Amino acid sequence: MELVLIKLGGSLITDKGKPYTARPEIMTHLVEQISLIRLENPNLQLIIGNGAGSFAHQSAKKYNTIDGFFCDADKLGFCLVHQDALDLNILLAKIFLQAGLPVISLPPVTMAITQNKKLFTIDFSVIENSLQAGLIPLVFGDVVLDKAIGGTILSTDTLLAELAKYFYSQGKFQVRLVNAGNYPGVLGEDGQVLSNITPVNYPQIKAALGESESIDVTGGMAKKVEEFFAISSLGVDCWIIDGNVSGNLARAVLNKPTQGTLIKAF
Amino acid sequence: MELVLIKLGGSLITDKGKPYTARPEIMTHLVEQISLIRLENPNLQLIIGNGAGSFAHQSAKKYNTIDGFFCDADKLGFCLVHQDALDLNILLAKIFLQAGLPVISLPPVTMAITQNKKLFTIDFSVIENSLQAGLIPLVFGDVVLDKAIGGTILSTDTLLAELAKYFYSQGKFQVRLVNAGNYPGVLGEDGQVLSNITPVNYPQIKAALGESESIDVTGGMAKKVEEFFAISSLGVDCWIIDGNVSGNLARAVLNKPTQGTLIKAF
Repeated sequence: MELVLIKLGGSLITDKGKPYTARPEIMTHLVEQISLIRLENPNLQLIIGNGAGSFAHQSAKKYNTIDGFFCDADKLGFCLVHQDALDLNILLAKIFLQAGLPVISLPPVTMAITQNKKLFTIDFSVIENSLQAGLIPLVFGDVVLDKAIGGTILSTDTLLAELAKYFYSQGKFQVRLVNAGNYPGVLGEDGQVLSNITPVNYPQIKAALGESESIDVTGGMAKKVEEFFAISSLGVDCWIIDGNVSGNLARAVLNKPTQGTLIKAF
Repeated sequence: MELVLIKLGGSLITDKGKPYTARPEIMTHLVEQISLIRLENPNLQLIIGNGAGSFAHQSAKKYNTIDGFFCDADKLGFCLVHQDALDLNILLAKIFLQAGLPVISLPPVTMAITQNKKLFTIDFSVIENSLQAGLIPLVFGDVVLDKAIGGTILSTDTLLAELAKYFYSQGKFQVRLVNAGNYPGVLGEDGQVLSNITPVNYPQIKAALGESESIDVTGGMAKKVEEFFAISSLGVDCWIIDGNVSGNLARAVLNKPTQGTLIKAF
């Protein structure tokens, strides 16, 4: 069985330069492609995760939620970040539902606990059960409770990487990950898109990657490449593609020629 | 430690006669009372649950979600009901957050699984961890996956009754439940509010209770009294009160003289 984890990047579905500004026309374009994917391959299992973009990254930075909560203002901040993340997720969910796709919004705060920002427990049973029931789980970067520092942030990338590991390790699924962002792919030192990242060129690329320009409390491209390379080493191919290019998401998900960077450790 | 489970009824916080119509002024009044409760007794632990009112009851009836899903339209309906329930919950959550109360919205679809509409597994760890972290869990009547019929509805009343049992059984908490609705309490056959329901008058009351007049897929007053009487038999006192009466919710939660019906099996 094939399972594709699709990340709809916060930089793609929101205007990261304008606080709390979604890009509904891009969301609609992405949802249309996912409808086409379902028509072309009804047996493909999908899990979708969206980034926080200019919604929860704003409040997460304001309250420094990634570093825990230690007073009442921090606790309120933690709850506000959750709400901001949920607001964007719901805008997206409604576009999916209007298109007739059975997405179910499932907040990661209910699934994971960290300890000093490292995952302590994670329970994906509701995602697995939703898939088995024929639904499309829709997750997002969210706050999570932390046993040492009260709370922190679990990024969509980390969550999808954990989901990839979880489902891959069951042995039932051939798992792939497609990350659609507001960038053409991973850029090399010459400013050109790298078509592939492999064990050969990875060390050099890792050293060269800088931080994302906009507010991104969860690490930007450098951390994304690191996390995706780690799961590609397990056997999960990862695409980093431009979600603005017409049809590009559908092509990547359906294993057709795609514009972007393929991270493939084998 | 004292724990009060507060139900904000769907009939109270929405106009049950008008689809998808919230009553924000009443929500604000209820939130103000909960702020006062926190000021007066900061050690009191609170869990809040809201009913679906004229939001999710509409779509739940349209798709007959309580009876499962058996085709793609039913699955989409299940997801739409979840979204409707979330929409109302989020309106309420935002009023809490604006008032500075650290509520965290936690959808029950992530916690419970049923089998032929009976609870099969339920996991309240995220609620317990949120309470321990000093947050106020905010739950609601939601869809849940069902091992036999795909999915069904878990009502706020059933959920709160399960929460009452769960926390009571730990032995750490003195647990009470306060249900604030758009009714003066439980009415007797003479149309007057019953001040108490006890093992003495319960059988007669149960026989006399009819169905709620508005759309309520989860059973209305008769089922509410039945569920609350069952948990009061464990030692959890339950108030059914008029949430429109100024200050009535705060008085019930703080154990002061309250207008309504007290269900007390001991």
